[in-house]
Amino acid sequence: MDERAALALLADELEYAGDDAAVVDDLVVTTDMLHETTDFPAGTTRYTAGWRAVGASLSDVAAMGAEAVAAVAAYAAPEFDGEELLAFVRGARDVCDLVGADYVGGDLDGHDEFTVTTTAIGRFDGQPVPRSGANSGNLLCVTGTLGRSAAALEYFGQNKHERANELFQFEPRIEAGRALALHATAMMDSSDGLARSLHQLGEASGCGFEVDASRVPIAESLREVTDTDEEALEQATTFGEDFELVATIPEGALAGVREVTPVSISVLGSAVPREDGITMDGEALPDRGFTHGCD
Amino acid sequence: MDERAALALLADELEYAGDDAAVVDDLVVTTDMLHETTDFPAGTTRYTAGWRAVGASLSDVAAMGAEAVAAVAAYAAPEFDGEELLAFVRGARDVCDLVGADYVGGDLDGHDEFTVTTTAIGRFDGQPVPRSGANSGNLLCVTGTLGRSAAALEYFGQNKHERANELFQFEPRIEAGRALALHATAMMDSSDGLARSLHQLGEASGCGFEVDASRVPIAESLREVTDTDEEALEQATTFGEDFELVATIPEGALAGVREVTPVSISVLGSAVPREDGITMDGEALPDRGFTHGCD
Repeated sequence: MDERAALALLADELEYAGDDAAVVDDLVVTTDMLHETTDFPAGTTRYTAGWRAVGASLSDVAAMGAEAVAAVAAYAAPEFDGEELLAFVRGARDVCDLVGADYVGGDLDGHDEFTVTTTAIGRFDGQPVPRSGANSGNLLCVTGTLGRSAAALEYFGQNKHERANELFQFEPRIEAGRALALHATAMMDSSDGLARSLHQLGEASGCGFEVDASRVPIAESLREVTDTDEEALEQATTFGEDFELVATIPEGALAGVREVTPVSISVLGSAVPREDGITMDGEALPDRGFTHGCD
Repeated sequence: MDERAALALLADELEYAGDDAAVVDDLVVTTDMLHETTDFPAGTTRYTAGWRAVGASLSDVAAMGAEAVAAVAAYAAPEFDGEELLAFVRGARDVCDLVGADYVGGDLDGHDEFTVTTTAIGRFDGQPVPRSGANSGNLLCVTGTLGRSAAALEYFGQNKHERANELFQFEPRIEAGRALALHATAMMDSSDGLARSLHQLGEASGCGFEVDASRVPIAESLREVTDTDEEALEQATTFGEDFELVATIPEGALAGVREVTPVSISVLGSAVPREDGITMDGEALPDRGFTHGCD
């Protein structure tokens, strides 16, 4: 059973199974477990690991349109190396500082593999943005650029660790999420890749999407490590792990969102009726991307 | 480096290093990672594992004197067995229901060993109870009884799994914690054992404790599996993993606390000047107990 099958099984038991985060009163809570072998390529510093692990949870808070309040991490390693531990904590704290959250520590534990679980808590002024509210005709938007993590992985493979670590640190889109939340009809983060995100939003909202390939914002770093436009586009749409926000907004809201959003907002296309499917330049965009979990 | 050494190293970096939980605004947050080989004896059902893992985090919320709001868990296993996963979720939800918290799911992940990280969130009306406020002359109190987990472990060893699982489920002392918080000068849970808890409270508060051995509330189930009073007392004071609350209160507050606290409150003795040390029946009570982590 993979993660998606298991989540389907849990859907009857848990209201928020499969969502980025759960909502309780005015709070949003999200938790993620990461392992050295599956989530941190060789060469990832503990500083980057702390940044990225906590950042991924903060990204889930951003995807709900909430303010980031706090994050904690449970840190397990074969041995507690003082320098590694401090580096992890500093990375975790720096990404929290960037978005105005408090990093308040967590748990230490012995384990045969470096494993961390991060939890982030956010708070709403208004209402959380669901995945289910996209309407045909809404503009389909994405923050920032896609492909930094794909580029990072390529640089890790080339042993260019400094550049790879730099690309592996990202800014969780808390501020953009709050600005988008004022107008967005549906929102999630792109951690499983743009293509998979569109399939998930489409399924939850009962709509399709048409994407204009020329508008997909490809990261410069991804261009550096790919030979052709096609390869870059393929990676940008399916690799994932980028932690940008994918949102649908009414057409009239675009100027207002851009005015208060600190990062670039690209309009990729629009939501269309469900029966028109999910397409890029008229071709079906398959549900391919990153599935967390095991077979 | 063991957990305590690592925590000392982090003390300069993190305000709440070593505390049961961290405080952010009116919220309390706590996280714990547990592994099959170190935390769940053979025979522990997934229902009990869900109950106990989430219960341990709720106990940390109780130790701060907060109301329990929500809990999440990140669940990792070599494969996602549907029945095991549902059993875990039901155990987690049942312990949350018992204390009025929402269990809102979490993350699923593949991993070579069954590993769970639970996070609980609480909220304060008033102020959190620190570990550092005990004053000489305060009464030393403990909720419920000590030794259920020690007894459970013995029953697991005897392959009496049903009885062992029953003893391994416990009620987090949220309600008692809130009642104690109105008066307590210091509080923590007994998860590392009574002896270690007293050393930790004594160090944080700058006091000693004198304990009357005859007042230590030994669980009936521990009596069943021990041969002598001495053995039962030894296990009750050092084994830990019981998730009762250890608190100090001014003498005049006892009747009021008992009136509003649903579980029994035993007075074990009192806080004394630091130089008098930590003693039981006049003998030094050594700092022995459960240290989480690795060498």
